[in-house]
Amino acid sequence: MAARTAVKEPSAAARRAPVRDTPKQDGRRRVVIEGIAPEVDGGRFPAKRTVGDMVRVEADVFTDGHDAVAAMLLYRKAGSKTWLETRMQALVNDRWFGEFPVAELGRYQFTVHGWVDHWETWRRDLLKRIQANGDTDLDYLMGAELIEAGATRAKESDADWLREQARQLRTETDTTARRTRAVDASLHDMMIRYPERHLATELDRELTIVVDPVRARFSSWYEFFPRSASPDPTRHGTFADCEARLPYIAELGFDVVYLPPIHPIGTTFRKGPNNSVTAEPGDTGSPWAIGAPEGGHKAIHPQLGTLDDFRRFVKRATEFGMQVALDIAFQVSPDHPYVREHEEWFRKRPDGTIQYAENPPKKYQDIYPFDFETPKWFELWQELKSVFTFWIEQGVRIFRVDNPHTKAFPFWQWCIGEIKSQWPEVLFLSEAFTRPKIMYRLAKLGFSQSYTYFPWRNAKAELTSYLTELTTPPVRDFFRANQWPNTPDILTEFLQLDTRAAFMIRFLLAATLGANYGIYGPAFELMEARPVRRGSEEYLDSEKYQIRQWDLARPDSLRELIGLVNRIRKENPALQNDWTLAFHPVDNEQLICYSKRSPDGSNLILVVVNLDPHHRQSGFVDLPLNQFDIEGDRSYQANDLLTGARYLWTGSRNYVELDPSSIPAHIFRIRKRLRVESDFEYFL
Amino acid sequence: MAARTAVKEPSAAARRAPVRDTPKQDGRRRVVIEGIAPEVDGGRFPAKRTVGDMVRVEADVFTDGHDAVAAMLLYRKAGSKTWLETRMQALVNDRWFGEFPVAELGRYQFTVHGWVDHWETWRRDLLKRIQANGDTDLDYLMGAELIEAGATRAKESDADWLREQARQLRTETDTTARRTRAVDASLHDMMIRYPERHLATELDRELTIVVDPVRARFSSWYEFFPRSASPDPTRHGTFADCEARLPYIAELGFDVVYLPPIHPIGTTFRKGPNNSVTAEPGDTGSPWAIGAPEGGHKAIHPQLGTLDDFRRFVKRATEFGMQVALDIAFQVSPDHPYVREHEEWFRKRPDGTIQYAENPPKKYQDIYPFDFETPKWFELWQELKSVFTFWIEQGVRIFRVDNPHTKAFPFWQWCIGEIKSQWPEVLFLSEAFTRPKIMYRLAKLGFSQSYTYFPWRNAKAELTSYLTELTTPPVRDFFRANQWPNTPDILTEFLQLDTRAAFMIRFLLAATLGANYGIYGPAFELMEARPVRRGSEEYLDSEKYQIRQWDLARPDSLRELIGLVNRIRKENPALQNDWTLAFHPVDNEQLICYSKRSPDGSNLILVVVNLDPHHRQSGFVDLPLNQFDIEGDRSYQANDLLTGARYLWTGSRNYVELDPSSIPAHIFRIRKRLRVESDFEYFL
Repeated sequence: MAARTAVKEPSAAARRAPVRDTPKQDGRRRVVIEGIAPEVDGGRFPAKRTVGDMVRVEADVFTDGHDAVAAMLLYRKAGSKTWLETRMQALVNDRWFGEFPVAELGRYQFTVHGWVDHWETWRRDLLKRIQANGDTDLDYLMGAELIEAGATRAKESDADWLREQARQLRTETDTTARRTRAVDASLHDMMIRYPERHLATELDRELTIVVDPVRARFSSWYEFFPRSASPDPTRHGTFADCEARLPYIAELGFDVVYLPPIHPIGTTFRKGPNNSVTAEPGDTGSPWAIGAPEGGHKAIHPQLGTLDDFRRFVKRATEFGMQVALDIAFQVSPDHPYVREHEEWFRKRPDGTIQYAENPPKKYQDIYPFDFETPKWFELWQELKSVFTFWIEQGVRIFRVDNPHTKAFPFWQWCIGEIKSQWPEVLFLSEAFTRPKIMYRLAKLGFSQSYTYFPWRNAKAELTSYLTELTTPPVRDFFRANQWPNTPDILTEFLQLDTRAAFMIRFLLAATLGANYGIYGPAFELMEARPVRRGSEEYLDSEKYQIRQWDLARPDSLRELIGLVNRIRKENPALQNDWTLAFHPVDNEQLICYSKRSPDGSNLILVVVNLDPHHRQSGFVDLPLNQFDIEGDRSYQANDLLTGARYLWTGSRNYVELDPSSIPAHIFRIRKRLRVESDFEYFL
Repeated sequence: MAARTAVKEPSAAARRAPVRDTPKQDGRRRVVIEGIAPEVDGGRFPAKRTVGDMVRVEADVFTDGHDAVAAMLLYRKAGSKTWLETRMQALVNDRWFGEFPVAELGRYQFTVHGWVDHWETWRRDLLKRIQANGDTDLDYLMGAELIEAGATRAKESDADWLREQARQLRTETDTTARRTRAVDASLHDMMIRYPERHLATELDRELTIVVDPVRARFSSWYEFFPRSASPDPTRHGTFADCEARLPYIAELGFDVVYLPPIHPIGTTFRKGPNNSVTAEPGDTGSPWAIGAPEGGHKAIHPQLGTLDDFRRFVKRATEFGMQVALDIAFQVSPDHPYVREHEEWFRKRPDGTIQYAENPPKKYQDIYPFDFETPKWFELWQELKSVFTFWIEQGVRIFRVDNPHTKAFPFWQWCIGEIKSQWPEVLFLSEAFTRPKIMYRLAKLGFSQSYTYFPWRNAKAELTSYLTELTTPPVRDFFRANQWPNTPDILTEFLQLDTRAAFMIRFLLAATLGANYGIYGPAFELMEARPVRRGSEEYLDSEKYQIRQWDLARPDSLRELIGLVNRIRKENPALQNDWTLAFHPVDNEQLICYSKRSPDGSNLILVVVNLDPHHRQSGFVDLPLNQFDIEGDRSYQANDLLTGARYLWTGSRNYVELDPSSIPAHIFRIRKRLRVESDFEYFL
C-alpha cells in the first residue's frame, strides 16, 4: 500500500450529503420501490429488447405496517411527453410485475410509482370483518368517506355514480344488502380507476430500453472473403462473384452475409501468405491493413469492383432476404490517406515517426492504431462515425466491429448512440475476444451483439455454466451472444481433431444454443482443419493473407445439414431466443441436453448433443415435465427434426443414443400431448 | 393487466437524456470504473463498519487496449474537505482493491479514480523488449520524455533529480548501464509519486460508510423485566432491584442489559394475565401499552422508581462494563398524554373516536398507533425523535425499537440520521419480525442491528443457507444480525420440546453463529418452556402481562454454561465477527459444523453442534485445511473450550461425537501447529 497523501477536493464527484434537519420530501410518501428490473448497472445503461417484445418489469414495492399498496408501471417512447400506465400485479414476497409492449425501434423509458391504497386496505379488512361477522356501521361510514373522496378525483359521470354509491352505503340498513353493495366488483373497479396518489412514491429515476430489430435476437451469419469468390482460380474475386454466391448462401439458410474489410489494402510492410513478414509481388495482403493511395475506410478495393457494384450486391442480398454486414476495423496501413491528412490522429515517436501497433516484443509495422488521446480526439470521433454513416448510405445496416476493445470506450457510447438515434435499425456486432468485463462493458455501451468464449467451451460443465451466465440476468439484459464455432482467426483445437463429427457437433451447438450464430465459410462447411502449425489456432494458408479456392460442390460438404438446421431454426420460434434456455441432466458426461421454448410456450425444442466426436454415447435424459406442461402419466412425442424419427416418450427419464458417425445430435420438437380416444369424434 | 391510460409527465423523475452530438466530458478519459464494493443499492445507502476496521474497497478498473492502468482509492471523514489517498492493487480479472482505516465514529466517504498509466506501460514493455534483446534508442528517448513530463509535476528537489535521470537516459551509451538506469526501482518509485492524472476517470459518486462502536458488531444482550426483579414476591420490582441484579448478569458475561418499556402503563382496555381482555384490579398491564396520566414515553413507571433511580442504574451498569438498552415502542395507550395534547397525530374514525390498532378481525383497543400520514407529520417526527434524545440525555446509548416496520420508513431514515449525526455512538436494534425485504430496508435506513429469523431456523440446511445470506455481500454490508433463541414474544416449538439439551443447542448456536446475540432471561437460563396453549409461541403466564418470580439460584440453571460461553466469546476474536463464518461438511444431517476466524487469521474457532436434542450423534467433519493454513500431513490441536478436552487431529476428516445429555456442542480452538523436534532448543 503506497503512502497516503492529502490531495485537493475532486471536482467531478458530487457530494451525497447526509440527511439533516428538515426533510426535503413529504415524509408521508410511505411506499418503498426498490430492486427494479430490468436495470443495468443501476440504470446507467439501457436494457435491450427487440421489436414486438413485451417488456416485463419487476420491482419490490411495499410499505410499513399492514396497509395495502398499489403499483403502477409508467412507460413511453423516448421523446414522447405522454406516459402510458399499466397497473402492476403482486407476485410473492413484495415483488410486483407489469408489462408493456415495445412495438417500435428506438428507445423507451419506464418508471414505477407506488402508493398506499387506503381503499383496498378498507375493502380487504371489511371482507375479513364480514367473514367474522364483526362489521359495524362505522366500517361502512369509513367506506363511504373513501368513496366520496374518490368521487372528487373522478370525471363527472363517474363522480355522480360514486356519490350515489356512498349515499346508499350510508343509508342502507339491511345488513346483507349493505355488505353486497360495499364489496361490489363494479364499485371496486371504479375506485381503482381513481386512486388517491398524491402521496405516491415515484422511483427516483427513469430506466431505458433500447429496442432493436428482431434480427438482433435471431440471426444466422455467414462470413466469406469476397476476393476468394471468383470461380476462376487465376482471378481476384469481385462483387459480381459475390452476387453469384448469394443463392448458395441463401440455400444454406443464412440471413446475414458478412464480408471482411472491402477497402484498398496497404503495401508498406504488407504481410505475405501465412503472415510472413515480407510479401512477394502479387501477394494480396491482409484486408485489415486498410488504406492505400486509392482510399481508406470509405473506398472499395479496386479489384472487388465499384461502389455501384457493391450497392447492387447489397440490394441483391436483400432480394434473398439477407442483409450484408460490413467489417469496420478502425486502424490503418501506413499508406492510408489519414496518415498524410491527419497526422495528429496518430501517436508520434521521439524521432517523428508514427507509432505502429505493438505487443512487445512483437511489432505490427503494417498497422497504425489511432491515438484516442489526441487533442483532436473529437475530430477523430466524428470522422470514424462518418465511416458508419457512409456505409449506411450505401444500404448497409449491420456492422461487425473489429477489436472494439482497442478503441476508447467513450467513443463507442457516443458513436453508437449517435448512429442509432438516427438509424435505430442499425446493428453492431462486437468482436472483442478479450477479458470478460471488457466484453460486457462494450455491450453496455451499445453493441447489439457480441462474440463470446463459445469456441473454447467444449465440456458439458463449461457449456452449461457459461451459457447459463449469458442467458440469465443481469448479463442477458445488455449482452446478446452471437455464437461462432470458427472465424478466420479461430480454428479451435476441437475442430483440428479433423473429423466430420467435430464440425457437426460444434455447428449444432452453435445453431441451437445461440439464436444468433455464424460460421466462417466455406472453410467451415468444407471442414478446413489444418492449422498453420501445431498449437496454433491460425488456419494454414489463411484467407486473411491470400486468396483461396473452395469447391462448394464437394460431396462431403456440410451444406445440407446446415441448410436443414437453419430451416428448423426458422420454423421453430423456440430456437429464436436464448432466454428460455434450460439445461437438463443426462447421466453421461458426454451427452448435453437442453431445451428452448417460444415465449408463449407453444413451441418446445429439446436438443441432445453427443460431445464426443469419436464414440457412440447413450444415456438417460431427465426432463422437468411440470415445466413442460406435460402430465407425468401421459405419453408425449419427441420428433427428431434432423432425421424425421418419431419417439413416444413417457415420464421424465428417457433413453437417448447418439452415434457421431451419423448425426451427433437430436433436435426434438416435443409435442406435449398425444391424441387419446376422447379427442376423436366417434368417442362422443 | 388494467387498461392503459395516458397521464401527465411525472414531476419527480428526472429524464436521463440519451447521449447526443458533442460529448460533455473529455472523451479521452479512457478508464472504466465499475462494480464498486462496498455499495448498498447503488450508493443510495451507506455500508456499515465499526471503529478500528480496515475498509476493503474493490472495483473493476480497466481501459481499452493494452495500456497499463492505475487506480487510487480516495477517502475522508465526512465533513473534511481533504481527501486522503491510497494506491489500489490489482487482483485478477480487472479487479482492484484498496483499504482505508476508520478510526473514528461517524461517517466516512470514499471514491475511486483511475487512469491510463503511460509510465507503467512504457516500463512494462521495455522490460519485455530487454528480455527479447529488442530495446532501441527510441525506447529510451520515449522514457526520457515521460520522466521529463513527470518532473513538471514533481516538487522542485524531486524534479531536479528526475530531470537528471532523463538526461542520463538520453546520453548513456552503454547498453547495460542504460537498461539498469531505466528500470531502476527508485526511479519507478519517484515516477509513481507524480502520476499523470489529468485524464483520470473519477467515479461518478461518493460512497458512504457509517462507522459504529465495536459493540454494533460484537454484543451479548440480556433482557429482563424490571418489575419482576424484586426478591419479595409481594412487591413490584424497582430500579434498585435491577441494580442488585447487575452482578448476576455481569457474571453471566453479558454486556448489554435490555429493559422492556419502563413507562407508565395505561389502564383503559388494560390486558390481564395471559393477554385476557379484561384486567382485574391489581393486574399490572403490558409495559408496551405506554402512557398514563403520570406521563408517556419520557416518564418512568412510578413503581419502578424515579428518573434519578434510573440514571443510577445506568451508571451502575457501566461500572460492570455493561450498557443499558431501552425499548422504544412508538404507540400509546388511550391514556397517554399525547392523546389529549396531540389528537391530530392519530387517525380519527367517522364517529370522532380514535382508530385503535387492528388486525381484522382482531382488535387491540388498548393501543393507538400514530398516524404517519397526519398533516402534522413533521411535528410528530420531531416529538418522536425527542424521545430518543431525552433518554440519551439520561445516559442511554442503545435502543431496541419495537415494531419499526409499522412506522413510516422515511421517519427512520431521518430520525436515525439526525441522532447519529450528533451521537454517532448510539445503536438501534430493529425488532421487525416481518417480511425479508422490509427487514433489510430498515437496516439500510440506518438500524445498527436487527433481529432475524434465527429462532425458526432449526435444520442444518436452513441454518446454513440463512446464515450464509446474512454474512455475505450484499446483505452483510448493511444488515447486522442479532441472534435470539427466545424473546418475550417467542417461545419456539423447539424450546417447547422442554429438554435441557434443546435450550443448550439454541443458546450455543446463537452465541457462536452470532457475534451479536441475546437471551430473554431469566426465562431462558431457567428453561421456561410452557406455552400459553398448544400451537402458540406465547409463554404461559407471560411477563408481558404479569409479574413473575424467578429462582435464579436453581441448580439446573444454565447460568454456568452461559457464563462460560460468554467468556469464550470475549477471549476469542474469531467469535466477535460474523463475516468469516464458513460452514463445513459433516456426514450426518444432525451435526452442523462451522468456523470463524479473527480478521488477522490468528484465532480460529471451530464449532460442531448436535442439532438433535434427543440422541447421541456422530460423524466425520471435513475441514478445508488449506483455508486454515494447516499443512495436510501435520497434526494440529483441536482444544474444546467447553470441556477442556484436547484432541490431536490429522488431515481434513475427523471424527466427532456429541451426546445431548452432556453438552451438545464442541467449541474448538484450532491450534494450527504442534511443536516438533526442531522447535526445541536441544535440537540446535
